[in-house]
Amino acid sequence: MRLRNKPRAGAVIGDHPNIVIPEPENHKGKWNEVFGNQHPIHIEVGMGKGQFVLGMAKANPDINYIGIELYDSVLLSALERILDEEEEVPNLRLLNVNAQDMSDFFGKGDISRVYLNFSDPWPKNRHAKRRLTHENFLDLYEQILPEEAEIHFKTDNRGLFEYSLVSMSQYGLILQDVSLDLHANEPEGNVMTEYEEKFSKKGQPIYRLEAKYPKRSS
Amino acid sequence: MRLRNKPRAGAVIGDHPNIVIPEPENHKGKWNEVFGNQHPIHIEVGMGKGQFVLGMAKANPDINYIGIELYDSVLLSALERILDEEEEVPNLRLLNVNAQDMSDFFGKGDISRVYLNFSDPWPKNRHAKRRLTHENFLDLYEQILPEEAEIHFKTDNRGLFEYSLVSMSQYGLILQDVSLDLHANEPEGNVMTEYEEKFSKKGQPIYRLEAKYPKRSS
Ligand SMILES: C[S@@+](CC[C@H](N)C(=O)[O-])C[C@H]1O[C@@H](n2cnc3c(N)ncnc32)[C@H](O)[C@@H]1O
Ligand SMILES: C[S@@+](CC[C@H](N)C(=O)[O-])C[C@H]1O[C@@H](n2cnc3c(N)ncnc32)[C@H](O)[C@@H]1O
Repeated sequence: MRLRNKPRAGAVIGDHPNIVIPEPENHKGKWNEVFGNQHPIHIEVGMGKGQFVLGMAKANPDINYIGIELYDSVLLSALERILDEEEEVPNLRLLNVNAQDMSDFFGKGDISRVYLNFSDPWPKNRHAKRRLTHENFLDLYEQILPEEAEIHFKTDNRGLFEYSLVSMSQYGLILQDVSLDLHANEPEGNVMTEYEEKFSKKGQPIYRLEAKYPKRSS
Repeated sequence: MRLRNKPRAGAVIGDHPNIVIPEPENHKGKWNEVFGNQHPIHIEVGMGKGQFVLGMAKANPDINYIGIELYDSVLLSALERILDEEEEVPNLRLLNVNAQDMSDFFGKGDISRVYLNFSDPWPKNRHAKRRLTHENFLDLYEQILPEEAEIHFKTDNRGLFEYSLVSMSQYGLILQDVSLDLHANEPEGNVMTEYEEKFSKKGQPIYRLEAKYPKRSS
């Protein structure tokens, strides 16, 4: 039995298998069936309380979104946010899983884009492998994305951003867009995450990048 | 006849052909003869008044340095700084040239590293080709460097740094080290440039990166 911070989280989550997909392995290679259409699927790894992924789903009805969150106590907040909506959000699903296990439930090309927002910085060198921009994760994402797909990454954490620029560049990802102060020229349609609101209110710069996987075939 | 801001610049420069090399084309492929040793040669493109390149030359006697500056009125200040030194600086030379013409006077492998410090930002898109990190310049540097050589770049200019990250990444350079606030953890032995002193005193963050050319042979 798993320990839960909020004992009711598991129960509430279990009551909404249409939103929080219970056995994601069963959908490997056929996620389009879950959404009932052929639209591209974008994921946010570490969605937290889901403000970003919900905002994106509402703004982009022709894209399907999956929010991934390790902790059920946190995912519960995202679920409640979705249930509080006046209307259903047909293009959004949640997964209560560890992103490390991704390749168990996503096949090559199932996912078209990866969003990483305010990922845990793991500042100690010995924890580098836990950073969601560590080469092991970049490799994992490549296993589920088509060629030339993109990662979009935002963070307030200078150290994590510096690390990620180097890690992505060494992996062979191509930077397409880098902003060292996103809110100095906020792009139209930027959807804020919870952390983004919090940190940008304090006047901290928000760093952002878009990186593209290279063509591997020759 | 060239117009000069400081009429005496040309005369003073002409009086020191041992420091400001008059006909750099004559040394293509044999810059080691100029220094009289086989030490690697590092250049600063756009050295301004020369504080950085002089500081580096004094700190690293086993590396030869060449400071390149377009304007003789500016180069004159660097020359005067060198002449004011108590001792000769045998491992430093200056060139009063446009970096655009580099391949006329440096052959492949003549130069081992390129420093770019506080390069003119040329913020307008139509001037992008003048930025010293434009792909045309990255190509020019590659023509004079050996494989896997590095560019070290510092700037206070956010827009130029963002542009350079993307431009370098798209060119195929590999980022090795990125700092988004150099003086937050100033590395030992950091030699400040004139502009670096000025902007960091104002509390502006200084951006820095090291990028490496890839192996081209297979
Ligand atoms: C700092 S929060 C940011 C939340 C949200 N993206 C935002 O920007 O406001 C990072 C979230 O990522 C989740 N997370 C970290 N590592 C994860 C992993 N390996 N798999 C799934 N979720 C993860 C954490 O539980 C946490 O909720
Ligand atoms: C903003 S200043 C920086 C000076 C110094 N590197 C520093 O950090 O204090 C840039 C210098 O680069 C020089 N420069 C710009 N483009 C150049 C080119 N194509 N060739 C040679 N010098 C150039 C300019 O004349 C100017 O003196």
